[in-house]
Amino acid sequence: MKRVAVLGSTGSIGTRTLEVARHLGDRIRVVALAGGNNVALLSDQIDELRPQLYHTLRPEAVRAGGAKLTSLEDIARHEDVDTVVVATSGNAGLRPTIAALRSGKTVLLANKEVLVMAGALVMEAARDSGALMIPVDSEHSALWQCLRGEKNGIGRLLLTASGGPFYRYAADRLADVTPGEALAHPVWSMGKKITIDSATLMNKGLEVIEAHWLFGVPFDNIDVLVHPDCIVHSLVEFVDGSVKAQLGPPDMALPIQYALSYPDRVPGLVTPLSWGGALTLTFEPVDAGRFPCLRLAEKAGRAGLTYPAVLCGADAAAVELFLQGAIRFTDIAALVEQAMEAHQPEVDPGLDQILDADEWARRFVMDRQRIAESASAVTPEDKQEVR
Amino acid sequence: MKRVAVLGSTGSIGTRTLEVARHLGDRIRVVALAGGNNVALLSDQIDELRPQLYHTLRPEAVRAGGAKLTSLEDIARHEDVDTVVVATSGNAGLRPTIAALRSGKTVLLANKEVLVMAGALVMEAARDSGALMIPVDSEHSALWQCLRGEKNGIGRLLLTASGGPFYRYAADRLADVTPGEALAHPVWSMGKKITIDSATLMNKGLEVIEAHWLFGVPFDNIDVLVHPDCIVHSLVEFVDGSVKAQLGPPDMALPIQYALSYPDRVPGLVTPLSWGGALTLTFEPVDAGRFPCLRLAEKAGRAGLTYPAVLCGADAAAVELFLQGAIRFTDIAALVEQAMEAHQPEVDPGLDQILDADEWARRFVMDRQRIAESASAVTPEDKQEVR
Repeated sequence: MKRVAVLGSTGSIGTRTLEVARHLGDRIRVVALAGGNNVALLSDQIDELRPQLYHTLRPEAVRAGGAKLTSLEDIARHEDVDTVVVATSGNAGLRPTIAALRSGKTVLLANKEVLVMAGALVMEAARDSGALMIPVDSEHSALWQCLRGEKNGIGRLLLTASGGPFYRYAADRLADVTPGEALAHPVWSMGKKITIDSATLMNKGLEVIEAHWLFGVPFDNIDVLVHPDCIVHSLVEFVDGSVKAQLGPPDMALPIQYALSYPDRVPGLVTPLSWGGALTLTFEPVDAGRFPCLRLAEKAGRAGLTYPAVLCGADAAAVELFLQGAIRFTDIAALVEQAMEAHQPEVDPGLDQILDADEWARRFVMDRQRIAESASAVTPEDKQEVR
Repeated sequence: MKRVAVLGSTGSIGTRTLEVARHLGDRIRVVALAGGNNVALLSDQIDELRPQLYHTLRPEAVRAGGAKLTSLEDIARHEDVDTVVVATSGNAGLRPTIAALRSGKTVLLANKEVLVMAGALVMEAARDSGALMIPVDSEHSALWQCLRGEKNGIGRLLLTASGGPFYRYAADRLADVTPGEALAHPVWSMGKKITIDSATLMNKGLEVIEAHWLFGVPFDNIDVLVHPDCIVHSLVEFVDGSVKAQLGPPDMALPIQYALSYPDRVPGLVTPLSWGGALTLTFEPVDAGRFPCLRLAEKAGRAGLTYPAVLCGADAAAVELFLQGAIRFTDIAALVEQAMEAHQPEVDPGLDQILDADEWARRFVMDRQRIAESASAVTPEDKQEVR
């Protein structure tokens, strides 16, 4: 039996993790839950699962039963926890992930920004303690599964991308897409931030950086393939020319269950792919021209230092502005690029510097937007230029 | 450095194995070569590679240099050999494979009939000595690669099939196809026997039986998918719904090199797949109605005993007759079925009984054909019926 802490239990991945935990029955004991602001759902989860520990941003509003309130980091290193599911969002997962790894806990990582922002620190923590980190993203789970049992010889990682809802749109049409259109992902059902990131391909860019850290593969050897079918979740090409791929229905329950039951495989919650009819899978190299976020992410990943944190912070702020209707879809990339250009990086940054850079980038985007708005209020004809 | 014996060095897989061995350089030392009747090529190979040991059916015609003539089985268990490539054809590989496994040698198996005819004995020999057996068939190499590092949880094996040159032909057109048409495989370049077996789907049937023995998977959990692109070499579906696939260019050098360099992967002899353009992969469930050999093979595999040996022997004889122009393409399946129906199986057969059953089936098919020919010489109008 694994004693599991679910950080971010009220989010999209967190709730699906609990469904998988119910399906796995006696193999899993949920000993800690941590939610953010959705106190009603967190209270229900505590009622049902009776964890020892919990965390929330609004303790006064949570029905905790006999559970003990504590911090994310205390949960992550608690002696009664052996597996920590990091399903938080944004920068919230950084400190608990490092705390869990340093304490030798197995980390199931679903919070992209952790590796993107602090890959060097996180991998060092895992190396030092020998702790296992299993990715929960469908793409990285696919790569992890393909690399299972392999000794050496990775040639290239091929990350698949659905392309999002606008992949076939001409560049000029992208400026006018609405938040509602961008939130309608053709295949995956996910949270709002990641759905917009999928539409800009920023999500794929973050995944490239994650893959670089997780598997120790240089950026030159990581490629993105557009695969609108969303059946092949990623591929590994080995130096001998052999390629391994992982396929499955596009449902996060699959990589979550794989990570929770690892190294075993047990009958799944998800209806498997059907092979009873004709199946066609298509792949094409990504055309990043219309989707500059992908190249911005690769640039930040290669630059390292605090650049990836700036990428994440600026993107988070810009996506928020887009969802509010304050900026256009194409402004997201423009604002991220401006933040990266304006950034003065820290050399050999620690966690504090990384979190500061993230915060700086969020403020930079918000300030830039306020300036643009004032400018547009005075001289509307200048608006394009400021952007 | 691996000290390798290549049994069947002058055949299609044997010559490709030597090309891969040259490519692998110092990793491989060829210490023994065995050819059948192609004495000119075998002499050249001995000149070049200077093995210690050799075997041939026509020693008087071979230029052996200082190499010592001996039997296939003696080569297979020789103390200076640690890896035996079994690239013989038909029943020739059975005794040397079992001898090699009993001596704890690593066997790279490219001779399908070995596992089809004597799966129980072969797997027992491997189990008893703990010897490693690595499949060289592209499909089984794919499955082996997908299962590498996996602990448990195989749900289903999905063997891919090109479908051969006649897969879209209507049933009545199949009776009239010629040996020349059948030998023109759309993708793979192989020996004559296996090319005809690909066209009848007997080859895929033999592979189903092989997969059953190699991976210990029940016949109910082995399916065949038609995949004319010949890029995905096979897939494994796990009980959790996750599927792993192995892809690569359709070139036997890939699985041969994988087996020779295992557990390492080293830069390949083969140009890898290109991901620089659009790629479409299609799959469909096999329609075995027009290709009864597939179901006959599955039936023989499920029946066990000496039935698979009868399947192999009858098929070998019938393919020979087809290549001589003596019978129609559709008669191959009919003759195999008649042999299986007429066979009185041995219970708990040893190697001798298995080889006897193979021999019996070859004679059965030849006799049946002679009867049909005499009948047709007397009363041509009866010919259809006898068939």
